[in-house]
Amino acid sequence: MITKAEITLVKSLGEKKARTANGLFVVEGRKMVEELVASDFLVETVYTTREQSEVVGAIKISPKEMERMSHLKTPSDYLALARIPNAKPDVKKMRNSLILALDNVQDPGNVGTIIRMADWFGIRTIVCSEDTADCFNPKVIQATMGAILRVRIHYLPLTQTLEELEMPIYGTFLEGNNIYKENLSEHGVIVMGNEGRGISSEVASLVSHKLFIPPFSEDGMGSESLNVAVATAIVCSEFRRRM
Amino acid sequence: MITKAEITLVKSLGEKKARTANGLFVVEGRKMVEELVASDFLVETVYTTREQSEVVGAIKISPKEMERMSHLKTPSDYLALARIPNAKPDVKKMRNSLILALDNVQDPGNVGTIIRMADWFGIRTIVCSEDTADCFNPKVIQATMGAILRVRIHYLPLTQTLEELEMPIYGTFLEGNNIYKENLSEHGVIVMGNEGRGISSEVASLVSHKLFIPPFSEDGMGSESLNVAVATAIVCSEFRRRM
Repeated sequence: MITKAEITLVKSLGEKKARTANGLFVVEGRKMVEELVASDFLVETVYTTREQSEVVGAIKISPKEMERMSHLKTPSDYLALARIPNAKPDVKKMRNSLILALDNVQDPGNVGTIIRMADWFGIRTIVCSEDTADCFNPKVIQATMGAILRVRIHYLPLTQTLEELEMPIYGTFLEGNNIYKENLSEHGVIVMGNEGRGISSEVASLVSHKLFIPPFSEDGMGSESLNVAVATAIVCSEFRRRM
Repeated sequence: MITKAEITLVKSLGEKKARTANGLFVVEGRKMVEELVASDFLVETVYTTREQSEVVGAIKISPKEMERMSHLKTPSDYLALARIPNAKPDVKKMRNSLILALDNVQDPGNVGTIIRMADWFGIRTIVCSEDTADCFNPKVIQATMGAILRVRIHYLPLTQTLEELEMPIYGTFLEGNNIYKENLSEHGVIVMGNEGRGISSEVASLVSHKLFIPPFSEDGMGSESLNVAVATAIVCSEFRRRM
């Protein structure tokens, strides 16, 4: 049984305002809902259209009800509501690891792809500027393929946080040094910038190591830039391959 | 001046059927339209809402007309129609280069990101299986940021083409060798597979070098896979960094 108010609530969580007001986010699909239940996130409710639920305590709803509250083009069998965590970042732990910082990355698809990739490369913390796309947007959640449950993401004033961390800070710039030939430290912060404008000037002034992914062109033609998720992947791969 | 039939035609080119029937595709945005005009693509028509067009021969239309035929959420000042090229691939030239092959990559966004990244790394040819998402889809065109004008893309029966090429064929597999430690040749084919199922078994049987991007995890947790565009970028970066 589900009330009309619950359906309206779930649907409203597509908007950041509603997520902030309620402190909730939506996870869809059996696999990710099962991972959510097994994680240390606080799960509020699980809904299912299945007669025999694989998830204990799931509330049975009709496919029509699922369709009305789902954020997917093709609704799945499972949808869960979970609490947005508000744990303070552990600065000490962060200093002993490789972390990512996103400076005003705008596209939810890019943020989702970056979280999934960070998870692959064992990056357990991402610090986002407060104007970066919200990672609890249903589109981001689904794009992470469950990685959102394993990577801790903090929205913080970025320059202040970077200063507090007192770590080597890496960023990509057109005038940076060839990343393939640079020394890269085991622990540090990799900053990635906005899709169009790159890293903001305030953050750029804190970058201690400017890097550049060299293009390869025998004919002098070529793209002027890489997609931010692609660039992040190449940089992270380069850090990890040295270890 | 623009007729209602022209608007209908441009709008219809969002569908592959209409693109195939008319042999035309749509390019939007001043920068990419200018690059198109300067390229060796055959340009059919350029439309602009500008009083004074920066592109010679552009047909003046109203913002309302542009809105009706645009495939963008926020229509731009320029829209062009160009011929879909049907040049035969030059097998000899391909043998002396690094090329990409896409085996049933389904998401237009992924295909666009891969084309843009290929352009950055100087990969001038992409061979796509006939069931790969169409690169002349307006969404792909825009995602390439102009790279579609510099990278030649051929839709061909993939297994037959790979056999004809007689080159080293690389692909990523869970049981592949650590890509960071493998010898990678200067010329060859990098095959990337479908988002969910990876490389098809027919194509897999032709792969001469199985590679694997090792995950990095100190805690044993982590994503099970990488987004295909991200994986392609890491593989291409790895090939190019050795040169």
